[in-house]
Amino acid sequence: MLIAQSGGPTAVINRSLVGAIQEAKRHKEIQDIYGARHGIKGLLAENMINLRRESAANLAAVAATPSAALGSVRKKPAQEECCRIFDVLQKYNVRYLFYIGGNDSAETTQIIADEAIKLNYEFRCFHIPKTIDNDLLENDHTPGFGSAAKFVACAVLGSSLDNSALPGVTIDVIMGRHAGFLAAASALARVHPDDGPHLIYLPERPFDMAQYLYDVKRVYDRLGRCVVVVSEGISDTAGTAIATKFTSETDAHGNVQLSGTGALGDLLANEIRSKTPITRVRADTFGYLQRSFPGLVSETDEREARAVGVLAVRWSVGSPSRSAMAERGRSKSGSVAIRRKPGRKYAVFFECVPLAAVAKATRHMPEAFINKEGNDVTQAFLDYVRPIVGPLPKVARLRGVRVPRLG
Amino acid sequence: MLIAQSGGPTAVINRSLVGAIQEAKRHKEIQDIYGARHGIKGLLAENMINLRRESAANLAAVAATPSAALGSVRKKPAQEECCRIFDVLQKYNVRYLFYIGGNDSAETTQIIADEAIKLNYEFRCFHIPKTIDNDLLENDHTPGFGSAAKFVACAVLGSSLDNSALPGVTIDVIMGRHAGFLAAASALARVHPDDGPHLIYLPERPFDMAQYLYDVKRVYDRLGRCVVVVSEGISDTAGTAIATKFTSETDAHGNVQLSGTGALGDLLANEIRSKTPITRVRADTFGYLQRSFPGLVSETDEREARAVGVLAVRWSVGSPSRSAMAERGRSKSGSVAIRRKPGRKYAVFFECVPLAAVAKATRHMPEAFINKEGNDVTQAFLDYVRPIVGPLPKVARLRGVRVPRLG
Repeated sequence: MLIAQSGGPTAVINRSLVGAIQEAKRHKEIQDIYGARHGIKGLLAENMINLRRESAANLAAVAATPSAALGSVRKKPAQEECCRIFDVLQKYNVRYLFYIGGNDSAETTQIIADEAIKLNYEFRCFHIPKTIDNDLLENDHTPGFGSAAKFVACAVLGSSLDNSALPGVTIDVIMGRHAGFLAAASALARVHPDDGPHLIYLPERPFDMAQYLYDVKRVYDRLGRCVVVVSEGISDTAGTAIATKFTSETDAHGNVQLSGTGALGDLLANEIRSKTPITRVRADTFGYLQRSFPGLVSETDEREARAVGVLAVRWSVGSPSRSAMAERGRSKSGSVAIRRKPGRKYAVFFECVPLAAVAKATRHMPEAFINKEGNDVTQAFLDYVRPIVGPLPKVARLRGVRVPRLG
Repeated sequence: MLIAQSGGPTAVINRSLVGAIQEAKRHKEIQDIYGARHGIKGLLAENMINLRRESAANLAAVAATPSAALGSVRKKPAQEECCRIFDVLQKYNVRYLFYIGGNDSAETTQIIADEAIKLNYEFRCFHIPKTIDNDLLENDHTPGFGSAAKFVACAVLGSSLDNSALPGVTIDVIMGRHAGFLAAASALARVHPDDGPHLIYLPERPFDMAQYLYDVKRVYDRLGRCVVVVSEGISDTAGTAIATKFTSETDAHGNVQLSGTGALGDLLANEIRSKTPITRVRADTFGYLQRSFPGLVSETDEREARAVGVLAVRWSVGSPSRSAMAERGRSKSGSVAIRRKPGRKYAVFFECVPLAAVAKATRHMPEAFINKEGNDVTQAFLDYVRPIVGPLPKVARLRGVRVPRLG
């Protein structure tokens, strides 16, 4: 078997990797366990490591380490590269492929799976879900999201406390190209009714600068301060991301680079400085801290990230469950999806879904999760997200009994 | 007594506040315990709360909460405000004043203390140290620094892992106006010799753009990646902060606002993009997350932050130790300084120092802490900072035994 990691790293993607390796060791059908360095780039270059040579103790330590231990890549194979991939797979007699990543990675997995069918190569090819954006179709939520959401909620909790101590307008820019889940999770930071974030802008709703200024001023007039959370992917009514005015770098999937620059936050801060009387305005762009911060994970996320790695291997070896797994000719493929059981108590189950069902397209925040004004989330979203993130650090404020004024 | 908080919040400033309140309750000399909202601003406006009305349980919870629970302020009193301050102090019969803050706050405390001497007002006036910048004179280090440094080290640890998974140049901009301690602490993130941060630029040494480009290219050529850490306060040879080209906002102490904007990081990233062949360049500005992140503290920092609050009250009531405390007429004043005991095992003691000794001026990184090239720290710095920050989350990499290439 060969396993690889792709796309943006997360705090728990190595849980999936190690879960898959540990499960693979339990199945005699799987002999060598290879890891490709930097996804299909390493596969193409035959840059692979022998994962059977990793000690159990080191694997356990790697599992607890954020970011992609094998290295990652942002690359979609071209047609001629698919042929080359199959040369390599056949040369090393790889019969099981596991690709951990988001929807772009699912698409890559599907391209490879289709090629196997075309070549009548006996092959099991599974996508293991991962994305902090939480934007995979077919999934209630995705591994990586819970931990990133916990970072965001903690950061905005701190940001709101800071803004309360030194009042003004604070703008926190959160990752999320097309889906606002991560920015929305900042709402978990609220403890008291006047806590931030006071406004949350998501890519699912058109961003209107005049409305934004109006909203901020209204909050500021009421509370003397305002914490604003925006997704990096917020777009105008024409669908153009506000941040794209400042960058033109795109990856192999044609995605414009929105992170790694503070330009959007600075633009939004300057709008307030120049068009309102508010003078103290700060913008923080959380950037890559959100996805690779060590020691800050959601326990639910850790557990589920491991589970999807384990199940992908188990399903690839055993007979598929009566699910939507694609099984054509000598090829078997699928993606592990997380579903939530109905009911008030949080519980999930896993299903195998066709690669095509998760490839390419992205899931957005459902309408029911966004308020009518498009500047906040609803209670339904909070109920959805809270068990995925788990408890946050407890914070308290002073009761604050006023000393009566004398004379 | 009256207590107040000033300057930028920290993760442990409420430890000092609650330590002082708890200690005050033990001394019959102190009757009412007032807290001024937002430092001297609240004092001037007679906006005070009764801290005896806070339950022990709530005080304990507040102590564990980052940011300034009383609210903070960036304000230096003008001469006429000093008169007004004394009107208020006399009106409410305040005989003990505790001001938690950095060197600007020590200066404010000193102005008030001097006024008390002038007016022959029986008064004990103490400064309690706090600053993530670690730039107070007379102190081995300051409360707030250890926890902020832990955040920075964790963040750069994650940043380096991320950069290793998706190679390129990553620039992390860290708080620190004149002192580079916080940026320097990122060196704790290194576990393996090739781990980031690979370059660290501090305000203590002139920043030369050509040297920076040369340094980055050299690391990139060697490792295929590079993690750069810079203090927000890096300045050119003329002493002008690189970041000031993008902002002109100043506070009441005349300090230019450097944080809350991503401009410096973006400038440094664009230099690499435009003047080297390196294409994947990311800049993250950690901003206010560094000082108010909940649930991430150095235990040493927590303990010492409480201690300085306790001791300020104890010393103000009791007879001063045989230290440098200023005692003139009916007035007594001082600042609590943290000193380190010599020896290999980390241990500190506390001394009372005159307000003038910590007011205004800032401490910088000693020469012995910075390498000759001015782009890294020394082992001496690492030995200094490690016990202040405490252990970081454990991370691991794969052993990575290469699969031999076939034919």
